Amino acid sequence: MEWTREQRYRKYKDWDAQTLLDLQAQAATSPYQMHYHIHPLSGLLNDPNGFSYYNGEYHLFCQSYPFGPVHGVKSWIHFASPDLVHWHYLGPAIDPDSDLDNAGAYSGSAMEHNGKLLLMYTGNHRDEDWTRIPYQVIAEMDENNHITKPDKAAILPPDHVSEHFRDPQLFKHNGKYYVLLGAQDAKTKSGHIDIYESDDLETWHENGYLDLGKDEMGYMIECPNLVFVDNYPVLIFCPQGLDKSIADYQNIYPNMYWIGKDINLSKAQFTPLQDHPANLDDGFDVYATQAFNAPDGNAYAISWVGLPDCTYPTDKENWANCYSQVKRLEIKDGVLYQHPVDAIKNLRHNEKQLNNEKIISQKAGKQYELKLHLAAGQAGKLHLASNEDLSASLVVDFNTAQDAKLTIDRASSGPAVNPDYGATRTIELNANQDLDLDIFVDGSLCEIFINDGRHVATLRFFAPSSNQKIAFDKDTKYTGRLWSMNSIL
Amino acid sequence: MEWTREQRYRKYKDWDAQTLLDLQAQAATSPYQMHYHIHPLSGLLNDPNGFSYYNGEYHLFCQSYPFGPVHGVKSWIHFASPDLVHWHYLGPAIDPDSDLDNAGAYSGSAMEHNGKLLLMYTGNHRDEDWTRIPYQVIAEMDENNHITKPDKAAILPPDHVSEHFRDPQLFKHNGKYYVLLGAQDAKTKSGHIDIYESDDLETWHENGYLDLGKDEMGYMIECPNLVFVDNYPVLIFCPQGLDKSIADYQNIYPNMYWIGKDINLSKAQFTPLQDHPANLDDGFDVYATQAFNAPDGNAYAISWVGLPDCTYPTDKENWANCYSQVKRLEIKDGVLYQHPVDAIKNLRHNEKQLNNEKIISQKAGKQYELKLHLAAGQAGKLHLASNEDLSASLVVDFNTAQDAKLTIDRASSGPAVNPDYGATRTIELNANQDLDLDIFVDGSLCEIFINDGRHVATLRFFAPSSNQKIAFDKDTKYTGRLWSMNSIL
Repeated sequence: MEWTREQRYRKYKDWDAQTLLDLQAQAATSPYQMHYHIHPLSGLLNDPNGFSYYNGEYHLFCQSYPFGPVHGVKSWIHFASPDLVHWHYLGPAIDPDSDLDNAGAYSGSAMEHNGKLLLMYTGNHRDEDWTRIPYQVIAEMDENNHITKPDKAAILPPDHVSEHFRDPQLFKHNGKYYVLLGAQDAKTKSGHIDIYESDDLETWHENGYLDLGKDEMGYMIECPNLVFVDNYPVLIFCPQGLDKSIADYQNIYPNMYWIGKDINLSKAQFTPLQDHPANLDDGFDVYATQAFNAPDGNAYAISWVGLPDCTYPTDKENWANCYSQVKRLEIKDGVLYQHPVDAIKNLRHNEKQLNNEKIISQKAGKQYELKLHLAAGQAGKLHLASNEDLSASLVVDFNTAQDAKLTIDRASSGPAVNPDYGATRTIELNANQDLDLDIFVDGSLCEIFINDGRHVATLRFFAPSSNQKIAFDKDTKYTGRLWSMNSIL
Repeated sequence: MEWTREQRYRKYKDWDAQTLLDLQAQAATSPYQMHYHIHPLSGLLNDPNGFSYYNGEYHLFCQSYPFGPVHGVKSWIHFASPDLVHWHYLGPAIDPDSDLDNAGAYSGSAMEHNGKLLLMYTGNHRDEDWTRIPYQVIAEMDENNHITKPDKAAILPPDHVSEHFRDPQLFKHNGKYYVLLGAQDAKTKSGHIDIYESDDLETWHENGYLDLGKDEMGYMIECPNLVFVDNYPVLIFCPQGLDKSIADYQNIYPNMYWIGKDINLSKAQFTPLQDHPANLDDGFDVYATQAFNAPDGNAYAISWVGLPDCTYPTDKENWANCYSQVKRLEIKDGVLYQHPVDAIKNLRHNEKQLNNEKIISQKAGKQYELKLHLAAGQAGKLHLASNEDLSASLVVDFNTAQDAKLTIDRASSGPAVNPDYGATRTIELNANQDLDLDIFVDGSLCEIFINDGRHVATLRFFAPSSNQKIAFDKDTKYTGRLWSMNSIL
């Protein structure tokens, strides 16, 4: 179905409630739906927003378009959790109902301030000629989750940026307030992270584009985040159109991270530790990851599992995309590690011990965690969501011998997903070493943590519901455990 | 706000989607909302329906009116769970969209048959003169949760009943199919359980009113259930207008259980073990409990926490009512015991050991389980959801000495709730015995399991959010444990 601009920007009040209830049912009953990851209640879910800790709970907001799998007029919806695993839905949060955001309440971030949670977002304003003005707006939420929007924007677009100026990250650092913004330079059409500074959250001064050295960052940077991990400044961002000679990637747009030795926000200087940015995720479908430094001392990240300008099989069911689980970040040996949070263990039940079995399960269900320790010096294929003879499955092809690598192949798992960008992803491994895999499957979502989070590969796959076998293609030396995972949503 | 008939029976498609999103948000963000019990996503929740096990999961349907805290045109919505604790929402199930149910898809039950889940419900038909015809309809749901409704009713109202003929319980027993129906006799205006029998689910024969002996069961029986508990037939039902000399109760309408020695459905004969029915719950707010025999050998029950013709403080927030947790039924010494299911332990976290402390917690949060073992021979008050000086709280007044009893007093817990029916409930206990309490609090819901489920007292209370202290009024001999409880919804 083609959506006209009129349809996509129709006001929510001009849709009828039965249609919304039916769309909610269609999303809820889909065989591809996930139940322990955040997913759309109806329509489209995209960027995670406002990931934060406030009033004794973790908060997460989501870009949402409730009426179809398209980028219609966006709003923020709200979830909260005591433990980053058990999320509960708290309803619409920022509606596109003011002049500042008449064509959508776009992405942003959250920060606690004076007992309130400040929600900074991009108000996507369109004027009568459909010309876009991106307003950076600071709303505030109180302890009862009531949100108040301001009458005017905190930051207006400067002359030197194009209409692509969005995704504010608001945070406090060394006693000052900063906002990082994804920006496209109006003249050069190049992508940047623009920095604003304030003493009082009222008056904002532009410090300019963050100096990222000689590497050009494509034509636009979306969703810039600065987070401190084990005292290193880490940039997490989406450089659209990044030249693959700078950092290779296979998805339509990359989600990169870049560890720094130092960052000087006032001078807009970043001193990299790594020569170049690197892929945050080695799978097929991660974008727009948002991270923040929590009061417990950890840095946590959550990713949109979905990509701009791509389609997915559930579009036909009128819903699209989901989120990754929350990942705790760590830096070891100069690279980023991502770990499941401890509380996800509380979802486990029906533990099955594994020890070299060729067939792990004939009917694993659609929600499980599979933790494997594969011995060095072998090669083989692990089939997930497989039919009986292993001819249709999600294949994890591993080699722990000399030519060590891991290849994830979703070609035979079900309907093709964005085939222009390939059906395999390969991760190079160290030769002749044991391999740890921690695999989470939830409906049509698969997350593979490799070697204790040294790599994470996240992907969607759309297997028939009857394909629930998990098996190796041949005898394999390994130990492991398999758990069913409880539903939370 | 007064609701006109036109408003209450407005079709769902004639409401706008923004209104529904806002109502969903209002319910989700209420400080009184519960997060580990089933609650309305918006509007009114009433009777549990179709509680069953099918296709590897437990299923539960709910009477729902999404647009306000009133009994408007009802539909069924659908939840499923692997463990009776972690429920996930599966959307609208039976919409009031056919001629058979044009004024509401009313209560009913579910039974697996030939790989489908049969959903039998009362189609509330209103003709042009607003005269009601209650049709008993059997829809069927497949493994993908798709529901097909029939063109005609399975059972039409017989001439001898009034328009009050509803709440079919469909089940198989000794090779035949039966339906129990709540019925009001047209002539005598007395309440009955009417029995239908079938060999093939197509042709139904009326066996007549179940003979319950000399006791009159008021003017109408709602929500009749027959469930077998430890081989005893147990009737669970709501005899509206029951004479209090038969069985005393304090709520506007009672929810009773009656253990039998035997039941002969073909002959419509019930041989009671107990002389009279007894209150299923000793609290303030339980009604319309639905129970079923699960394949694991247990009988499970879930209750509507809400009462007909009553109001609650959340009416002002446009949502009303919730469900109890699922209770496993047992018969010991000729009476019914109700137990939490084992899986609810998976929601516990942050355990605190207790040993005679006067103050159990200064800030317990709004979701907790408090398990106490109180020594015999003492009396005192336990204050839940209390302010600092214990002057405003939900009071559990206990006496484990000679005059042993437990009184729950919600008078000072917050705004009055249906004060015409009293603010206290008292349970007589055996003198000079230790007392076990297992107390579950979730927002504005409290469930107290007394002496290992010998009694359960369920109630709503509407304390200010700041009142989170738990304390005894004086030194008390006890041991216990306190846990925070995770959210599931």
